[in-house]
Amino acid sequence: MGIMEPVSKKKVTITDNFFGFYTRLARETMIPYQWEVLNDRVIDAEPSHAVKNFKIAAGLEKGDFYGFVFQDSDVAKWLEAVGYSLMTHPDPELEKTADEIIDLIEKAQCPDGYLDTYYIINKNEKRWSNLCECHELYCAGHLIEAAVAYYEATGKDKLLKIACRFADLIDSVFGPEEGKIKGYPGHQEIELALVKLYKVTKNPKYLKLSTFFINERGKEPNYFIYEWEHVRGKVSHWSRREEPAPNLEYNQAHKPARQQEKAVGHAVRAVYMYSAMADIAYETADNELFEALKRLWRNITQRQMYITGGIGSTRHGEAFTFDYDLPNDTIYAETCASIGLVFFAHRMLKMHLSGEYGDVIEKVLYNLLPGSMSLNGREFFYVNPLEVWPKACDKDPGKHHVKPVRQKWFSCACCPPNIARLLTSLGDYIYSVNRDTLFTHLYIGGEVETEICNSKVLIRQNSKYPYQGEVNLTVLVDEPLNFNLALRIPSWCWNYELYINGQKQNYETKGGYAILNEKWNNGDNVKIIMDMPVEIMASNPKVRENAGKVCIMRGPLVYCIEEVDNGPNLSAITLCTDKELKTEKSKDLPDGTVIITGEGVRNVEDEWDDTLYRPYRKIKTLPVRIKAIPYYLWGNRGRGEMQVWIRGK
Amino acid sequence: MGIMEPVSKKKVTITDNFFGFYTRLARETMIPYQWEVLNDRVIDAEPSHAVKNFKIAAGLEKGDFYGFVFQDSDVAKWLEAVGYSLMTHPDPELEKTADEIIDLIEKAQCPDGYLDTYYIINKNEKRWSNLCECHELYCAGHLIEAAVAYYEATGKDKLLKIACRFADLIDSVFGPEEGKIKGYPGHQEIELALVKLYKVTKNPKYLKLSTFFINERGKEPNYFIYEWEHVRGKVSHWSRREEPAPNLEYNQAHKPARQQEKAVGHAVRAVYMYSAMADIAYETADNELFEALKRLWRNITQRQMYITGGIGSTRHGEAFTFDYDLPNDTIYAETCASIGLVFFAHRMLKMHLSGEYGDVIEKVLYNLLPGSMSLNGREFFYVNPLEVWPKACDKDPGKHHVKPVRQKWFSCACCPPNIARLLTSLGDYIYSVNRDTLFTHLYIGGEVETEICNSKVLIRQNSKYPYQGEVNLTVLVDEPLNFNLALRIPSWCWNYELYINGQKQNYETKGGYAILNEKWNNGDNVKIIMDMPVEIMASNPKVRENAGKVCIMRGPLVYCIEEVDNGPNLSAITLCTDKELKTEKSKDLPDGTVIITGEGVRNVEDEWDDTLYRPYRKIKTLPVRIKAIPYYLWGNRGRGEMQVWIRGK
Repeated sequence: MGIMEPVSKKKVTITDNFFGFYTRLARETMIPYQWEVLNDRVIDAEPSHAVKNFKIAAGLEKGDFYGFVFQDSDVAKWLEAVGYSLMTHPDPELEKTADEIIDLIEKAQCPDGYLDTYYIINKNEKRWSNLCECHELYCAGHLIEAAVAYYEATGKDKLLKIACRFADLIDSVFGPEEGKIKGYPGHQEIELALVKLYKVTKNPKYLKLSTFFINERGKEPNYFIYEWEHVRGKVSHWSRREEPAPNLEYNQAHKPARQQEKAVGHAVRAVYMYSAMADIAYETADNELFEALKRLWRNITQRQMYITGGIGSTRHGEAFTFDYDLPNDTIYAETCASIGLVFFAHRMLKMHLSGEYGDVIEKVLYNLLPGSMSLNGREFFYVNPLEVWPKACDKDPGKHHVKPVRQKWFSCACCPPNIARLLTSLGDYIYSVNRDTLFTHLYIGGEVETEICNSKVLIRQNSKYPYQGEVNLTVLVDEPLNFNLALRIPSWCWNYELYINGQKQNYETKGGYAILNEKWNNGDNVKIIMDMPVEIMASNPKVRENAGKVCIMRGPLVYCIEEVDNGPNLSAITLCTDKELKTEKSKDLPDGTVIITGEGVRNVEDEWDDTLYRPYRKIKTLPVRIKAIPYYLWGNRGRGEMQVWIRGK
Repeated sequence: MGIMEPVSKKKVTITDNFFGFYTRLARETMIPYQWEVLNDRVIDAEPSHAVKNFKIAAGLEKGDFYGFVFQDSDVAKWLEAVGYSLMTHPDPELEKTADEIIDLIEKAQCPDGYLDTYYIINKNEKRWSNLCECHELYCAGHLIEAAVAYYEATGKDKLLKIACRFADLIDSVFGPEEGKIKGYPGHQEIELALVKLYKVTKNPKYLKLSTFFINERGKEPNYFIYEWEHVRGKVSHWSRREEPAPNLEYNQAHKPARQQEKAVGHAVRAVYMYSAMADIAYETADNELFEALKRLWRNITQRQMYITGGIGSTRHGEAFTFDYDLPNDTIYAETCASIGLVFFAHRMLKMHLSGEYGDVIEKVLYNLLPGSMSLNGREFFYVNPLEVWPKACDKDPGKHHVKPVRQKWFSCACCPPNIARLLTSLGDYIYSVNRDTLFTHLYIGGEVETEICNSKVLIRQNSKYPYQGEVNLTVLVDEPLNFNLALRIPSWCWNYELYINGQKQNYETKGGYAILNEKWNNGDNVKIIMDMPVEIMASNPKVRENAGKVCIMRGPLVYCIEEVDNGPNLSAITLCTDKELKTEKSKDLPDGTVIITGEGVRNVEDEWDDTLYRPYRKIKTLPVRIKAIPYYLWGNRGRGEMQVWIRGK
């Protein structure tokens, strides 16, 4: 049922100002920095111990396991990012480091293929006894993803063999057959990894196992309830004592996956599961699964997604809550969840030509994702708020989880290596092809090389996105070739013009794409000029948190106001929506940053003295000039307040 | 340092429409209903077991202790309310019931005077070993308060003797002397109770012990840290295992009480402590303590108090957070905390003539307090929100503690009997006297009898407060008498007129009181007409939660909008502040209720379809008629949304 295949990152280069910077940061700073962290060599950062756990499991060092039960996955995600990086940017030193850690992983693996340092160090006693809370299958999934990436990058199959041995063991333990465990992971991840393993090994048993995990999930009698009652004696891994039965919505096990209507529970688990479901729908042409995914996609993007691309409204279970519940200050919006949303969108796009997927990927890529890291590539957000009052983060226990400054590392460090693996694989998301069409989903400058109608095609994209709406594509072909060039028209764009070699074109869009059917000559130029005015946005009135508030956007970029530009107490400011908003070059943010200024009023605090409440008729306001910066750059000029949704009048 | 003494509730009758109703409800419904609950005879209510615990402790029944460690206090608070009720409304049946429970309490008391059913049933093993978490001294305090009330009401001293025996035991265990414990209660309460015991017994050791508890609190080395480390082996009563050192701010033990600058920690504990400090400051003329209390009072009322009189912004520790942090929907604002604030205000008023104390008492009495119970007197709020979205209460774990409907009882049932004891002692709060002045703090209709200048004075107050601003006071004296009649001018009142026997008077106010110095003849009429227009209120801009929002008030009453009158999604409504607001009689609320209507606009939801965010320029609004009802009546017409702070334009 697929309609197009992404062009591999191997065939794509990224060179524009925006993602050229971020992908270089990932390669040159994040990967080396994270290696240092994984080896506990960064002062003042939360300890990782992840590499050391492997050394202890391999018998090379003495000691206890340290960290979360899923600590292994940090190493695997780092290795996966290394694999992606090596695909486009060979680096013998880095490859040597990776080979060494792979040797270590091999040494830690048990003779039967089992590989999870938490259980190995703790004598393997309770393997598979707490699927719901402990993350063996999750860690296995990340190991598999790393193995596939590293094999595809280097052709070296040591890690792939390790992963296959482990996957084979898992296949012998889980499944519908008599005597096998009818369970599935507490934290979904292995499902999508097994599809990758299937695709690289062509062994259908991995696809079958993945499908088993998805189909078994949420069936009655519920495995997690059974496990809680009969396998682990109601004892929780976390509290080490008896606890009530698990909350099944939390890990999307409340009903069969294909019957689920709304995104619920832990947001990362949800989108990882939906990604796997999309893989299976694609590989097995399972239309029922695909219809379920469309429902879940709509529920997220039309009911439960922040304007920055964040998902997961509450820290309680790092979870979705309910439709239109999108608080800005008690928000969770975990970085990993939005990365998983990109995975989900990318897979849906293979089956369903619709601009909405690219719109959401773009929303995450230009807002939440770069916002989740500092410009030096060494500090990260786990939680991505749309409103921050540092004092409340310090003093209100309901906001302690929101950090006003990015952190060097986390005890639960899922996010930083996830950012690294997304940035190093960003090439995957820009273009797709089918028999006769090359689709451009994102306006990221660089080159792509692919084949259409059995002919080699090279496209050179020149883009100053997200700050300018003009993009130029140069078509390079060996000889004139007839094919479609499909260009996504972003949903933020109300007016655009298309030119081929300077001649204005009129094209209808289909599913959010302008499809240019031409016989292309070598060197043909396609120019798209998207009007990129400042736009004041409002929320659906059902989003109560944003009632009376507006958000400034320009192109794909969400803007915010910061204390450093607008003084303390941002909530006292109202934007005059009927006055012109102006763009300016920034003086204290990276070159090329466009900031926005506008007119507003501010409630005067001076005259209040020591009163909390006074007649409204006595309230005074003063005009102020409001300065807004792109959201993704917030928090780079010191600790202070930030607000995306501003009162408007 | 006292400047006036309250006239005892024994000398005051309450007969007006408002508090005549609520005090009758307390006597005729709440006290009998709560007795049924304490005996576990109310179907569908949370079990209490409080009476049964005493029976088990007395050896009359077998069984285990059930409930919170402070379950005894529910019985004591009920008995205290019974005492107050009997003072003005003798009831032999009720008195018989009370005598029986007192007999039971006597049987439960240990030979050495100890009396706490949790420890008695659990074999007395760990008495005084966890002052920080377990509530022995708190329960002792409530027992003492009950004993004093019952003795003053009936002259019967059995309970008083029980209380004295227990207090004597406590005095032998705690104190500065060698060999005594240098500790103090985790939950303050006994401090103010001991002052009451001192006043009724005239035994100074009780005042001394109370002063010891206050002065010892927060000294270094900290007793709670010492106890945690050396007495209870770091084990928590609640989790039954080792826990980190206690949070000292939580129970106001972070620094000596008299050095505290801001209200912090558990709100009920805080205001109970401040009340005791005020008692001690008054009894011992301790000016340093009084200055500390003025600071703490100002911090609460000028920085941390909701417009309804609620205090305690967060459920995390049922606590104060920080200045200007007053969220409406994640609020705590426990009923007991505002009752404790009334206790605190009432004690400050004895030392400091200022209308602010009466203003706050009035704010609580006409808003939070009646709002915390249903009109049938059988359902209660523990948490008193200013904004409720029932769906969020159900689905957002950060709002689960906010209930959209009043409950029949609570596993932690501190609030309902606290309401009962405040209402039955309401007479204490209306008038004070000193040598030559009678102060009227509250405009509650009824009569007061007292002595001024050694002569009997009777004042008959006729009031339709809070709905009408005209109040008439008739002075009844045996012969003409020169004295001051001081009338509090509420802070909400911007214009008022004063008449004596129909003649308009001009009086300057002093400290918020108009002081009428006259030679009064029998039957003289004093009329005060307070303008009571509808007033739109705003919050200090530092209260971020209320930015852009207004609150409708009239006189002392805070108004709110409800879904039943204004449709779902109240946050979509904006009040037009420049249009006239009108008062109307309500058709579906109790007789005499004045509702307020005004013009507003509502964001139209229809056209949004499945979009979450759209350009602001495309947003449409429709005019709507807004209907607001007094806050204290919310939630009496079914489950639905409610909002006090409304967007204003």
